[in-house]
Amino acid sequence: MSSISSKEIQIERAKTTKIDQVDFNNIDFGRIFTDHMFVCDFKDGKWQTPKIMPYQPMTIDPSARVFHYGQAVFEGMKAYKDEAGKVWLFRPEENHARINKSAARLAIPEFPKDYFFNGLHTLLNLDKDWVKPGMGNSLYIRPFVIATEPAISASPASEYRFMIICSPAKAYYSGKVRVLFAEKFSRSADGGVGFAKAAGNYAAQFHPTNLAKEQGYQQVVWTDANTHEYLEEAGTMNVFFRVNDTLITAPTNDRILDGITRKSIIQLAKDNHIDVEVRRVSVKEIKDAARNGSLKEIFGAGTAAVISPISAFEHAEEVFELPNIEDSFASIFKEKLLNIQHNLSEDLHNWRQEVK
Amino acid sequence: MSSISSKEIQIERAKTTKIDQVDFNNIDFGRIFTDHMFVCDFKDGKWQTPKIMPYQPMTIDPSARVFHYGQAVFEGMKAYKDEAGKVWLFRPEENHARINKSAARLAIPEFPKDYFFNGLHTLLNLDKDWVKPGMGNSLYIRPFVIATEPAISASPASEYRFMIICSPAKAYYSGKVRVLFAEKFSRSADGGVGFAKAAGNYAAQFHPTNLAKEQGYQQVVWTDANTHEYLEEAGTMNVFFRVNDTLITAPTNDRILDGITRKSIIQLAKDNHIDVEVRRVSVKEIKDAARNGSLKEIFGAGTAAVISPISAFEHAEEVFELPNIEDSFASIFKEKLLNIQHNLSEDLHNWRQEVK
Repeated sequence: MSSISSKEIQIERAKTTKIDQVDFNNIDFGRIFTDHMFVCDFKDGKWQTPKIMPYQPMTIDPSARVFHYGQAVFEGMKAYKDEAGKVWLFRPEENHARINKSAARLAIPEFPKDYFFNGLHTLLNLDKDWVKPGMGNSLYIRPFVIATEPAISASPASEYRFMIICSPAKAYYSGKVRVLFAEKFSRSADGGVGFAKAAGNYAAQFHPTNLAKEQGYQQVVWTDANTHEYLEEAGTMNVFFRVNDTLITAPTNDRILDGITRKSIIQLAKDNHIDVEVRRVSVKEIKDAARNGSLKEIFGAGTAAVISPISAFEHAEEVFELPNIEDSFASIFKEKLLNIQHNLSEDLHNWRQEVK
Repeated sequence: MSSISSKEIQIERAKTTKIDQVDFNNIDFGRIFTDHMFVCDFKDGKWQTPKIMPYQPMTIDPSARVFHYGQAVFEGMKAYKDEAGKVWLFRPEENHARINKSAARLAIPEFPKDYFFNGLHTLLNLDKDWVKPGMGNSLYIRPFVIATEPAISASPASEYRFMIICSPAKAYYSGKVRVLFAEKFSRSADGGVGFAKAAGNYAAQFHPTNLAKEQGYQQVVWTDANTHEYLEEAGTMNVFFRVNDTLITAPTNDRILDGITRKSIIQLAKDNHIDVEVRRVSVKEIKDAARNGSLKEIFGAGTAAVISPISAFEHAEEVFELPNIEDSFASIFKEKLLNIQHNLSEDLHNWRQEVK
């Protein structure tokens, strides 16, 4: 693949900034975008010269394949500002590797690493005032690729657009989350695209999640489509169970997203001598553990959600309320993660990357 | 829901027509569009006044949820012109019902029937010169809905766009098709969205289909994700098997699209006293039937493909070539269907609808 330096990105600066219109203390997730966006088109068999331009609507044909066949993948990342004003990314190489893994599964061309990182750093430098310091503040970064070729035959497109847009963020879920364990609906099949951050995986969850919301649950924890006996993930989060002092989470496979927060928590648990078991987790064992009191906590983990404690779950019309505990694993891991992300603690595994 | 008559559609006519630039004898499927398109936006909790305007690119925010979460469903229909110049649709009520069924599964608001039919008929009247008479000619019609709300939180959008675009068409697959029976990859899960014409279902098939193409197969016939022992559908077509003189096809369920061509063939078979079995079809029985000579034919059926004879299949690295037979069911049903669609034969079941 061709190589590109930051200097070769075509930059059109915004004439004015929108930043003064934003109340950073009251931010609805994903509705406000920074002054610039990164755009790179794929055509004639290769990625073209990338551009950074003022954030703006784009023009696209109604026959663009993304609208008809869902060829679209994305990533979720965050940038954090430390007290000295430096801006940091968290394990961004993992996001780049994963968007290409997602892309390959959807027959989308991979995006070159140097384009990705030069584009990302150049964009974040232009919009660095949008990254606010302080715990809980971050800039949510959304790289994504869509099929733009104007042709509605059901086959892979020959034209794509890779973009990065950025949105200032607070925590995604506020308060504790109540979840429903899926008994009928499924998120993904063996041999399917569940492991990919494919756009279609998300829309498929909205209706079952709406039904759960009507019952008072914010999220669904998906179970395996074959038997509905094993717990998998929550769609926007991987899920961890603490039974006594052991942390348990499902292994990744072709149905479950290989979450970066998930794997960071597994590493942090090991670093802190907490027993971690990565194995199939049955609905039955979690219900049994809830009944006998050994289930201490459940929490979700993901870039947008960070760590989201779960206060109750329902399965087979039985509701299990979880105890309030002190020194929860959820709170310990959240603090450790945020401290690393905000450059407040040592970075043993070289997870931070400074934006320069 | 509110009601709307054709007169209330806002119509902006194209100043010129593109029709003279089109070589109707050499048409690549889905790349050429007629002079007009139908557009109706959903916001503030309701569908707004529909518009017909010159076919053109549209402006959409990069944060529109369709790009990120795949909230998009569509339909495929065709219009046919008879020798008297009248234009006909085939079972369009089924398309309207199905797009709403697909929409409901993806938490997209349903589109009112009167909007759908008034829009469709008004659009086709404007562009009726694009429907060419003669067997094999048709106008492919693509109604679709996309989530347009500019906000990247993972939840159903509050704004959508419903559109109809039209593209002149010849047959979709030319020549016979060789297929691979899926052994590893899957199209959909129990409890998933396989029954819906959801955009994401299609992108998920592109990579496995590319791998099949590298082996010399144009299509994959999907098997159930749990066991890969039962044959389901081909992604853009339902699949029929003829064993001796019995026609067999899989029942629809939440993994398989309820194809309109499929159900029409089942009815035509009944009308013509051909035995039809709608039941699970195992890979094993089809391989056994191929070996003992009782498997006479396999064909795919769908709106775009009409009826597509399959000349060979591969499973577990074993290739089965199908015989060339005279008076194949595929050719019989294709002729009967096309004759009904083109107003050349009696329409026993009131499948035709004239465009007025």
